[in-house]
Amino acid sequence: MSGKIDARLAELGITLPAPAKPVANYVPFVVSGAHVFVSGQVPIEGGVVKYAGRVGGELSAEDGQAAARMAAINLMSQVREAAGGDLDRVKRCVRLGVYVASAADFTDQPRVANGASDVMVEVFGEKGRHARTAIATNVLPLNCAVEVDGIFELA
Amino acid sequence: MSGKIDARLAELGITLPAPAKPVANYVPFVVSGAHVFVSGQVPIEGGVVKYAGRVGGELSAEDGQAAARMAAINLMSQVREAAGGDLDRVKRCVRLGVYVASAADFTDQPRVANGASDVMVEVFGEKGRHARTAIATNVLPLNCAVEVDGIFELA
Amino acid sequence: MSGKIDARLAELGITLPAPAKPVANYVPFVVSGAHVFVSGQVPIEGGVVKYAGRVGGELSAEDGQAAARMAAINLMSQVREAAGGDLDRVKRCVRLGVYVASAADFTDQPRVANGASDVMVEVFGEKGRHARTAIATNVLPLNCAVEVDGIFELA
Repeated sequence: MSGKIDARLAELGITLPAPAKPVANYVPFVVSGAHVFVSGQVPIEGGVVKYAGRVGGELSAEDGQAAARMAAINLMSQVREAAGGDLDRVKRCVRLGVYVASAADFTDQPRVANGASDVMVEVFGEKGRHARTAIATNVLPLNCAVEVDGIFELA
Repeated sequence: MSGKIDARLAELGITLPAPAKPVANYVPFVVSGAHVFVSGQVPIEGGVVKYAGRVGGELSAEDGQAAARMAAINLMSQVREAAGGDLDRVKRCVRLGVYVASAADFTDQPRVANGASDVMVEVFGEKGRHARTAIATNVLPLNCAVEVDGIFELA
Repeated sequence: MSGKIDARLAELGITLPAPAKPVANYVPFVVSGAHVFVSGQVPIEGGVVKYAGRVGGELSAEDGQAAARMAAINLMSQVREAAGGDLDRVKRCVRLGVYVASAADFTDQPRVANGASDVMVEVFGEKGRHARTAIATNVLPLNCAVEVDGIFELA
């Protein structure tokens, strides 16, 4: 836990939570070749959904952004586990999928998704710059505001 | 057709259908490097949509689960084709994307998606444990209840 | 700019636009191993959204198809950039994700998605045949009718 990325996380005041375990027949991540495929993560902290509802409805774009950031931090926690605890092995955040539970007239999903993209670049620098697809959905699991999945390349 | 996975399918009483052919300029799967990327599959049997409508609306979560299972079985049928008929070549089910046509207040997409995840593990065992992203949509092609796509690693 | 695919584009009368730059902490594409992961592209021309609204609502399936075609052309423009300007390096269009902003009772997303699939095959021939997942969403960024992302293999 004394790597460069761990130091950067400490500098930013970000504590990665213990990675959540799915309660079903799937796993939080699969390592295949040089890539880690991470399951969709949601804005849960200590087992509690922190941002529930639709952005542009009960929730503001700022709420959505905070939700995306939290989901992305949960994603990093899974990547750390996949990398055997060493985030310095992350060669690249390749792609993020950002799914935003949205009121039907809310069209600023990119701004919401920036909550995930920004924290990725804050932590990983240039290696954190990723391809991204941000879309809306009418609702999400557990009524979460945002879900984020990702593909990472490990060294 | 005498492999271990074929035997397991027989044991489970699962008959893989003939793989459906898309009627457009795309293909059911692409093999790229060690990976097979499979197109979105729906709960169709013999050319007929078996589960139409929204989960949490016209359809129950149990219906949705059965739809996800059927779509996942159609997915396996494509993977078998991609593997030249030999499902024993499947090294890993890497990732499933599960899209659930949902009423706006239905939030148990994970339970629905388990219909796909469970059959994958029943058939492939540990190799069937995958990363998963389950989201809702307001509607799906042909009014299907569920769509499932996947990435598999072949040996 | 004198490759076979460039010639084919000229023959088809398709001019690839200058690739759009995301205005956030993500990038239009990431090259990882032999693959290019391209961010979600929308039907924007010269910075202006050309197809806004929902298919099956304000927009017809034909409008949606034209939107999908435009988004796919924008995708190609990113792939050309990723390939150092040489589209002849495209070995395969591996997968397209097509997201269609849809009225709740519109179920012909495949027809809309064909707008993207068809142009891919017109331009790349057999190498353009891809795995595809087409889903609906209740709304999309900037109120776009369609969003398309992709994974390509480069030689």
